[in-house]
Amino acid sequence: MPTIFFYGPKLDKEKRREMIKSFTETASRLSGKSKASIVVYLRESSPESVGVGGELLEDREKQK
Amino acid sequence: MPTIFFYGPKLDKEKRREMIKSFTETASRLSGKSKASIVVYLRESSPESVGVGGELLEDREKQK
Amino acid sequence: MPTIFFYGPKLDKEKRREMIKSFTETASRLSGKSKASIVVYLRESSPESVGVGGELLEDREKQK
Amino acid sequence: MPTIFFYGPKLDKEKRREMIKSFTETASRLSGKSKASIVVYLRESSPESVGVGGELLEDREKQK
Amino acid sequence: MPTIFFYGPKLDKEKRREMIKSFTETASRLSGKSKASIVVYLRESSPESVGVGGELLEDREKQK
Amino acid sequence: MPTIFFYGPKLDKEKRREMIKSFTETASRLSGKSKASIVVYLRESSPESVGVGGELLEDREKQK
Repeated sequence: MPTIFFYGPKLDKEKRREMIKSFTETASRLSGKSKASIVVYLRESSPESVGVGGELLEDREKQK
Repeated sequence: MPTIFFYGPKLDKEKRREMIKSFTETASRLSGKSKASIVVYLRESSPESVGVGGELLEDREKQK
Repeated sequence: MPTIFFYGPKLDKEKRREMIKSFTETASRLSGKSKASIVVYLRESSPESVGVGGELLEDREKQK
Repeated sequence: MPTIFFYGPKLDKEKRREMIKSFTETASRLSGKSKASIVVYLRESSPESVGVGGELLEDREKQK
Repeated sequence: MPTIFFYGPKLDKEKRREMIKSFTETASRLSGKSKASIVVYLRESSPESVGVGGELLEDREKQK
Repeated sequence: MPTIFFYGPKLDKEKRREMIKSFTETASRLSGKSKASIVVYLRESSPESVGVGGELLEDREKQK
């Protein structure tokens, strides 16, 4: 039953597959729970709705 | 003040109404908190961004 | 794979059983997903660490 | 490393900037952690997918 | 109905009061929702169960 | 700024270190974000407060 949430940038499908596979294998091996019982949620978070260091991420990225 | 989050597939409006009603009544009855104080968030999660058993749900559903 | 989180007061074991049973049946019926695939997390939240209306819940409860 | 999640209505960009700035300053001052280490996620939640008092928020707003 | 979650270090009661008050006032002012409808959850997170930069926070703090 | 939450059983310290290291490396490699910016929260969830398949996990584990 372990459940994993990832909040981060949008990833293309091949990377989503890899992330789910890797997180699930690591979580199963370390928790002793079967891979079948593990759910991973990839929650996209765009720079328009995240703040880092008190600033909108979108603004920070433009400054670079 | 209880708060409930549901992560799952997109539901049509009538089902969203039923889910909110049922979750709220159950939570109010068992926690002793008023229904007015309970908030339910239905957070849609598409098969393209969920993993089950180490695989993208979208891929699993295609195999069936 | 639906996942439900409940943030609220500590409940005794019989009430936790009822809440899990009811939430799972409702979620399964409305989402069309099997009950076996649904996970419910009951996350206890004490009045010392919740705010309602800008006040610590513990303070509000004392005023009554 | 503190992390803040806000679930609420969609805000325009200037308000998102203000919310991130204010939450981060408050969290840094009270937790003693640097502003640079604090992340804020603004998670939009529409009236079609939130329930208050057992009713879909969209339905409640129409009644007023 | 906005809901705010803060994941961070344990705070003493006076700081918890201030954080709840400040977050609620900011969220109410910017979202246009009443303060009475806003719930804040302070979720304590200890250095033994948080990772930053790939390391357990407890280990990082010892190195300093 | 990616943030990862793991809800699952209590792990001993060495396993927590491994999980944080592995999740962070995978998330950094696939998202292109620096490891330093990634935070992992390990949120312990005991069998007394989790439901699987409509039953309290604690009850299910006793039946086996």
